[in-house]
Amino acid sequence: MNYNVLFLPHNQTITVPDGETLIRAAMEAGVHINASCGGEGVCGKCRVIIEEGSVEEGITEKLNKDDLKKGYRLACKSVIRSDITVRVPVESEVDASALKMKPTARCTARIVQPDFESLKDKGLFTPPVEKKYLELPKPSATDNLPDTTRLVSFLKINHDEHRLVVSLPVIRMLPEILREKDFKITATLARPVQAGRKSYIIRIEPGDTTDRNYAIAMDIGTTTIYGQLIDLKTGEVLSEAADFNGQISYGEDVISRIVFAEKGDGMAKLHEVVVSTMNKIIEKILRRAKVKKDEASTITLSGNTTMTQLFLQVNPKYIRRSPYVPAATIYPPLHARSLGLELGDHTEALVYPQISSYVGGDIVAGVMGSGMYRAEALTLFMDIGTNAEIVIGNKDWLACAACSAGPAFEGGGISFGMRAARGAIEDFSIHPGTLEPMNITIGNVLAKGICGSGLIIMVAKMFETGVIDNQGKFNRNLGTNRIRETEDIWEYVVAWEEETQIGRDIVLTEVDIENFIRAKAAIYSGCQTLLAEVGLEIGMIERIFLAGGFGSYVDLEKAMTIGLLPEMDTEKISFIGNSSLLGARMSAMTNRIRQDVGDVMRKMTNFELSETPSYMDNYVASLFLPHTDIDLFPKVKARLKNCDMKQ
Amino acid sequence: MNYNVLFLPHNQTITVPDGETLIRAAMEAGVHINASCGGEGVCGKCRVIIEEGSVEEGITEKLNKDDLKKGYRLACKSVIRSDITVRVPVESEVDASALKMKPTARCTARIVQPDFESLKDKGLFTPPVEKKYLELPKPSATDNLPDTTRLVSFLKINHDEHRLVVSLPVIRMLPEILREKDFKITATLARPVQAGRKSYIIRIEPGDTTDRNYAIAMDIGTTTIYGQLIDLKTGEVLSEAADFNGQISYGEDVISRIVFAEKGDGMAKLHEVVVSTMNKIIEKILRRAKVKKDEASTITLSGNTTMTQLFLQVNPKYIRRSPYVPAATIYPPLHARSLGLELGDHTEALVYPQISSYVGGDIVAGVMGSGMYRAEALTLFMDIGTNAEIVIGNKDWLACAACSAGPAFEGGGISFGMRAARGAIEDFSIHPGTLEPMNITIGNVLAKGICGSGLIIMVAKMFETGVIDNQGKFNRNLGTNRIRETEDIWEYVVAWEEETQIGRDIVLTEVDIENFIRAKAAIYSGCQTLLAEVGLEIGMIERIFLAGGFGSYVDLEKAMTIGLLPEMDTEKISFIGNSSLLGARMSAMTNRIRQDVGDVMRKMTNFELSETPSYMDNYVASLFLPHTDIDLFPKVKARLKNCDMKQ
Repeated sequence: MNYNVLFLPHNQTITVPDGETLIRAAMEAGVHINASCGGEGVCGKCRVIIEEGSVEEGITEKLNKDDLKKGYRLACKSVIRSDITVRVPVESEVDASALKMKPTARCTARIVQPDFESLKDKGLFTPPVEKKYLELPKPSATDNLPDTTRLVSFLKINHDEHRLVVSLPVIRMLPEILREKDFKITATLARPVQAGRKSYIIRIEPGDTTDRNYAIAMDIGTTTIYGQLIDLKTGEVLSEAADFNGQISYGEDVISRIVFAEKGDGMAKLHEVVVSTMNKIIEKILRRAKVKKDEASTITLSGNTTMTQLFLQVNPKYIRRSPYVPAATIYPPLHARSLGLELGDHTEALVYPQISSYVGGDIVAGVMGSGMYRAEALTLFMDIGTNAEIVIGNKDWLACAACSAGPAFEGGGISFGMRAARGAIEDFSIHPGTLEPMNITIGNVLAKGICGSGLIIMVAKMFETGVIDNQGKFNRNLGTNRIRETEDIWEYVVAWEEETQIGRDIVLTEVDIENFIRAKAAIYSGCQTLLAEVGLEIGMIERIFLAGGFGSYVDLEKAMTIGLLPEMDTEKISFIGNSSLLGARMSAMTNRIRQDVGDVMRKMTNFELSETPSYMDNYVASLFLPHTDIDLFPKVKARLKNCDMKQ
Repeated sequence: MNYNVLFLPHNQTITVPDGETLIRAAMEAGVHINASCGGEGVCGKCRVIIEEGSVEEGITEKLNKDDLKKGYRLACKSVIRSDITVRVPVESEVDASALKMKPTARCTARIVQPDFESLKDKGLFTPPVEKKYLELPKPSATDNLPDTTRLVSFLKINHDEHRLVVSLPVIRMLPEILREKDFKITATLARPVQAGRKSYIIRIEPGDTTDRNYAIAMDIGTTTIYGQLIDLKTGEVLSEAADFNGQISYGEDVISRIVFAEKGDGMAKLHEVVVSTMNKIIEKILRRAKVKKDEASTITLSGNTTMTQLFLQVNPKYIRRSPYVPAATIYPPLHARSLGLELGDHTEALVYPQISSYVGGDIVAGVMGSGMYRAEALTLFMDIGTNAEIVIGNKDWLACAACSAGPAFEGGGISFGMRAARGAIEDFSIHPGTLEPMNITIGNVLAKGICGSGLIIMVAKMFETGVIDNQGKFNRNLGTNRIRETEDIWEYVVAWEEETQIGRDIVLTEVDIENFIRAKAAIYSGCQTLLAEVGLEIGMIERIFLAGGFGSYVDLEKAMTIGLLPEMDTEKISFIGNSSLLGARMSAMTNRIRQDVGDVMRKMTNFELSETPSYMDNYVASLFLPHTDIDLFPKVKARLKNCDMKQ
């Protein structure tokens, strides 16, 4: 059920779902309502008048009886249950000018879910492990073929299976298992990457167990590890779980993990804890779906280069040393058990290949999961997390790079930056007249800090309202106590200490903004550089895939305003979620992925941006909001011009 | 230095090497000299007169001064150091008739040693593991390929190596080892069976170690395990060692081992002890050649089906149960370490495939080692040990069978049968007149029993002299106390108790002879059956390869006389020694063997003789000396006729 909300005097209408809070509807509509406390109702600043219809709640001690009679409610506490008309009180002359500004509604990327059903339609639902039920002829005096020969010949004759290898563990169990149910067995076959190569018979069970064939897909993130259990008969995800990577206690980012790995038995310790986290997740998803560990025939794994090497006990030492060389790209199929995973003796572990020290298996998995390598359209794939990796290309060519963006988008290097957790300011508006903020936090609680997506909006709004200039410097002459100089650094007070959970003023400083601009510049100029190296320009990008948790919250228009994303129709920007996990899942479901990944690896050109001559120029030119060359952002240019004219 | 020995009154001359004893020279020449004590000099019966020239020693207390003056010496103690003329005293009228018999000189098979040098000439000296010294370019800011990619690309470009797989253990060691000697390394490559398939990089060492690349070849016999260390640079065998299979304590033959394996942790125990024997041999041959265990890149193994399964911890239970099904034919390449062998982490174990429960990897290795699968000539390959296996064929077809010969040729099932060890009667003659024996034992000591090769000679001589008839029954009317009936069983006293080490008369009974005839019949009729199944006859066999320790001692003429071997020119019979070990060594030296073995396995037809209708008729017809159909043995027929006429 949706309702229409009309904001006056702006005369701005927005349609919101039943149960939305009024303050979020206002933010969505681009209507500024003063609000500092993040939506918890304690600052009492977000007073609005309900002129038509009614809202649920919205009543607090901050409103007296007189207020209530007049229809005043607190926007942050009001729940929309019908069509309503809301008047936002205009409390000063200056405020009136705000009404002239054309609001831009918050627009996040369309969420794209891959269509796994179509795999089946296309006959591509061919997992790398397959079960076959077989009723073998029983041996007799005149037919006493060895057990393996009986099995292999039967598969050859009746199932057109050739080039089969029977592993020693299977040979060991074969004599008893064949005779357990009268030579009726289920064989598990591990498929080769390339058709025509050897298939391995990795397991034999008595009777028909073809109903129970499962795979696990796992994304080994630096921060979080995600696992999914997949039914290989239907392709369904039966259960999923996530947990913090146990390695976090030994360092937040990959570099600190590598440093730790170099000390004493540090590498063994990091291996142990990551495997322990993985086993916890495995145990959980198996238990939830009532699947036994030896019913999982395969586990597909993706992770960045450092996570992959630590998991596989390959020393990551040289990843952080110039010239930044990883140990390997491609890992052969491995035994899950030999890696410490508590799965069947036969369970195969397939590990996504790495491209370079800072473009790892998670990105390759993302490219595979997104399908960009099969597309005609020139696509930009972006995974912004602790680091930012970009891939540009299509079915004909691919180029990738790791951008030294740093962790600004995860709140790193920002005075009050924080991860997107409860209490993080995730949405923000600034009143162009009063310069008062409108803060909305995750969980509608008192603010603790600012998360990455909030930061983008904050910088964009400050830039649009002229609070900061295109170099990120504050306008020193705006006459508000929110902009101040502390210890030689200029800053904007986002929330006063009494409106926070931390008992200190939450501020955004010029140094924060500088760090933030450097981060976005690294990414944007990275894209420009990759394109320039193949003779193309950034305007030619036809669509963007955003991966990683961050991508789903980014206000696309604001990301363009600050020059993080190239300007384009927001319809062409999709959020594909945890594409590393998606890629892992894809490769558990269709062996085609493993065939294609070889091509992708060959097609992919990795650029070390620091070694690419044009990069530095592009980077320096990007150290502006949105860019030195404003013509790269025509819509932003037009909007800014419009604002200037109106002010 | 060779000398001529003329025996009188036989007028028989023989040429023998310097240092030969006179009694062995006589035996070789077919000249009977009474001798019961085996050659130790205690019976004093082998008195001869040296008429010309002189011998060393030959003087004992059995001869008085008068005897010595007349030139008497004991033949068993006389060492030939020059040309001599020897008179054998004729002590009775009857003896004279013996002189009319045409003696047949002892003739053992020509020993064939494979010509490994020719492998090199033919470009076939291509071991399954190869070392390559590589000087890789060092990484730089503009060339920061992953370590594996650097290695693989270099091999591709500079050594035309394609389809390389780098194993996880190698990936783990690669970063440090590459940087230890400035990116100068030696890579060990494990070759695929078929050209064009994947090669595995299994080891990386710093610097140039191509000089040190070794293989171990091992024959896992039921009784004895043999190992050889091979230098893969030259093909030379650097050291070898043998030891009794530790499993002997748990049963003499494969059946008793299987029975033991079925009880409690019997299989684990048998695995443990065989691996322990193997490790002892490995340690010994490595130490002798001053080679480190991780310098052995590969170990090639051959053994019969039961030995192979016990070593690989594959339950042999069904090998001894009808319809006698082994677990597997082909085993994939394995890691030596995972099998319990104390070799390098990377050392590959290549195990010869099995054909059936009783035609195992030792026979396949023999076929490969003998080269019969590449020959034009129709060849019979025979390995007579605890069991007897035969292979017949050539480059176009191959058929094999296990013959239920039992252990008669190893002394089993014979009252005084024993293995070919010190004290075993290995050569024998019977005086056609006196019916006195001439026993020669291994080590020239008092007799303890009769070994297989001695038994063949004994039965043949008794048959030729009419002591037994063609059914193996004693002629009851020969008037000698050596032939007697004890507890309803007729027997011949080979040595009186005082002439033995065991303090009992050593006899050969009719039951022994019956068992012996059954054993030889099983083998001969097996050959006939295989040939008949492909429409051929036994007379078409062009050559015979005898394998196993037994084969080198067999008196070929006698083996034909009793009908064990088909009659043919003895020049066409070769002894190829431990062909199982030979095959293992071959496959360590040329990968071509592994390619060929696949073809051989496909070409080979295994016959279960008990299930082959024609077998029983052939078998029954063979239960005679030499055969019901004497025309199959024309030379024996002629010789017998000759004897009859003379007597």
